[in-house]
Amino acid sequence: MATVKLWTDEEAGADPRVKAIFDDIRATRKSGFVNNFWRALANQPAVLERTWTSIKQVMIEPGALDPLTKELIYIAVSATNSCGYCVHSHTAAARAKGLSPEQHAELLAVIGMAAETNALATALQIPVDPEFEIR
Amino acid sequence: MATVKLWTDEEAGADPRVKAIFDDIRATRKSGFVNNFWRALANQPAVLERTWTSIKQVMIEPGALDPLTKELIYIAVSATNSCGYCVHSHTAAARAKGLSPEQHAELLAVIGMAAETNALATALQIPVDPEFEIR
Amino acid sequence: MATVKLWTDEEAGADPRVKAIFDDIRATRKSGFVNNFWRALANQPAVLERTWTSIKQVMIEPGALDPLTKELIYIAVSATNSCGYCVHSHTAAARAKGLSPEQHAELLAVIGMAAETNALATALQIPVDPEFEIR
Amino acid sequence: MATVKLWTDEEAGADPRVKAIFDDIRATRKSGFVNNFWRALANQPAVLERTWTSIKQVMIEPGALDPLTKELIYIAVSATNSCGYCVHSHTAAARAKGLSPEQHAELLAVIGMAAETNALATALQIPVDPEFEIR
Amino acid sequence: MATVKLWTDEEAGADPRVKAIFDDIRATRKSGFVNNFWRALANQPAVLERTWTSIKQVMIEPGALDPLTKELIYIAVSATNSCGYCVHSHTAAARAKGLSPEQHAELLAVIGMAAETNALATALQIPVDPEFEIR
Amino acid sequence: MATVKLWTDEEAGADPRVKAIFDDIRATRKSGFVNNFWRALANQPAVLERTWTSIKQVMIEPGALDPLTKELIYIAVSATNSCGYCVHSHTAAARAKGLSPEQHAELLAVIGMAAETNALATALQIPVDPEFEIR
Repeated sequence: MATVKLWTDEEAGADPRVKAIFDDIRATRKSGFVNNFWRALANQPAVLERTWTSIKQVMIEPGALDPLTKELIYIAVSATNSCGYCVHSHTAAARAKGLSPEQHAELLAVIGMAAETNALATALQIPVDPEFEIR
Repeated sequence: MATVKLWTDEEAGADPRVKAIFDDIRATRKSGFVNNFWRALANQPAVLERTWTSIKQVMIEPGALDPLTKELIYIAVSATNSCGYCVHSHTAAARAKGLSPEQHAELLAVIGMAAETNALATALQIPVDPEFEIR
Repeated sequence: MATVKLWTDEEAGADPRVKAIFDDIRATRKSGFVNNFWRALANQPAVLERTWTSIKQVMIEPGALDPLTKELIYIAVSATNSCGYCVHSHTAAARAKGLSPEQHAELLAVIGMAAETNALATALQIPVDPEFEIR
Repeated sequence: MATVKLWTDEEAGADPRVKAIFDDIRATRKSGFVNNFWRALANQPAVLERTWTSIKQVMIEPGALDPLTKELIYIAVSATNSCGYCVHSHTAAARAKGLSPEQHAELLAVIGMAAETNALATALQIPVDPEFEIR
Repeated sequence: MATVKLWTDEEAGADPRVKAIFDDIRATRKSGFVNNFWRALANQPAVLERTWTSIKQVMIEPGALDPLTKELIYIAVSATNSCGYCVHSHTAAARAKGLSPEQHAELLAVIGMAAETNALATALQIPVDPEFEIR
Repeated sequence: MATVKLWTDEEAGADPRVKAIFDDIRATRKSGFVNNFWRALANQPAVLERTWTSIKQVMIEPGALDPLTKELIYIAVSATNSCGYCVHSHTAAARAKGLSPEQHAELLAVIGMAAETNALATALQIPVDPEFEIR
């Protein structure tokens, strides 16, 4: 269960602000599917609008990183933040963008190694090498 | 300051187990530079060996993800875990592997968006959509 | 499932130390409801006593912050720590103290923005401005 | 040191996109001070614009929560995410908005209690009470 | 549901690389039970091999800390990282190694206190005392 | 720098409530040294009293876990929460209680492995095995 109501299509259709965003999600993704994240944010139309606008800019508009790489980064952050929902939704998104089992395996290996060495570096309080400074 | 001694080259040279790893780090990276992380782990030779062996396998051996992508994922995990040392060392590593300012900007945008939507999804306790289930 | 037994009212009633705390929870909250958190802590009576005493002091006794504000802060920490149980119990507590949908929406917006800028500041390792120093 | 260059006023003044944001920060806050967070984001103009626009909407425009309460929530998230820079900048912001030592003490008490009970609830894997479900 | 398939014994038996690890898990633990963690990692044989080899070295081979103490540390990290699966599996492992209810209660008390004082120290940005420096 | 003033012995001596706690810290630890954590909490006397009382109960009074084991757990939580101050103070405390370099090495190995497998288990969203359920 969520801590807020998940909006049905009917409820969303009756609120022009929410309807506009749901319509744009469907048009942008060329899919009728609107996942629960947006159905929960519908309770907060200003947050819904701002979050969708940002997601579109960051994750969907063409940029310097390809769409699959961006999903890998998203999964890495989500796993580290222990967000089960986000791990699920972005692993599904990565698969839709062509994630191979070999790439998934390597992503997991990097996430695991980073978590391990992060913990070691923090437990040892290692000072930053001057060689890493930008010039 | 670290919570353990950082080994100098002279100290590392006098311990065969540590010397072997430091030599391999230099040979593998084709560089004389051994950063503080390894100089701290030298106090725990078994951890030093295991960690370097794993890092070589995961980050250096060719695989299904290119080396720069793996550094981006490493930075994403390190920032999320709030490991300052790791953010510095892997941002430097990513630059050495060709990270452009545009790619860095986009990496930051994705890390930030993921952190934001992770927090929202957790604060709303959104249930996983059945559409995300693997089949 | 929990990693420990959840005590029933009958079991709690048979242990004077646990009974005293459960009675005080009910009297303080003017409600018969004792939530699972306390039923799990009943396995560790010393932790149960210390935690309830602290919660009473911090969250229930009048202080410099009003009760609803304290619940908002509690939700913010709980979401950031990815504690689903805590998000649920303190969102319910905030609602009982008058949280409006508009306040909830704004709380979520602040939690999300803070998570995003935290990630950016950490990924950029921004040095603290001297202007922020206390004098 | 940061992982990117911190832009001086002179550098910011020479880039119209960055200059526009820095000007708006100064005008909105009625202060000449632009803190390092924005000077670092100047390297990523799109992130700078999006982040400032969102911060203005969430933290500065009038809403359902008063400005000081929003800073308390921001500090709570920042401390939990272990973002030293953010703790400093938002504690300074809260002081500028009237945070009293008594309110600060109580904020700390709530942050600490929440962190403690979050850890306990997670270590005990307590199931959500049906009473917390929304109806 | 997991984000990957959980391998059955039949599937594992048909893949020599996975079979070898599952056989070693059973032989090392003197038990027929292979838990879901390894059944999920079977999708990434290189990660499976490296993780099991490391776990054997760190958690099972005799060392300077006794097996139960190592499980307590594992639970502490897992609870702090909000890994529900890991809390469950390592609490079960600790019980199998003799964890008493009194030890469990004290573990929880320490985890909770540490979480609380971590949050306070971070929210106050306390500088490290020179007395803590190694010499 | 801290976000609050660190109290000197002179300032603490002039406030009866703070003086009583500082005196008890010195008497309990049989040492004149009062570290910065307590000097910062002196700004919030109620938090100072509650925290010291709890620390004494949990970390100093004899219990089911020995004092060194409790420090190891404290370090594990502190490293995972990325609390640099806490890592330093509790590593120093562990050394004062007899932590050997071999034990420190093994502690680090367990913290690192736990962090790695936590990240893997979360990224894979592994369901809890029924075998782990308490009975």
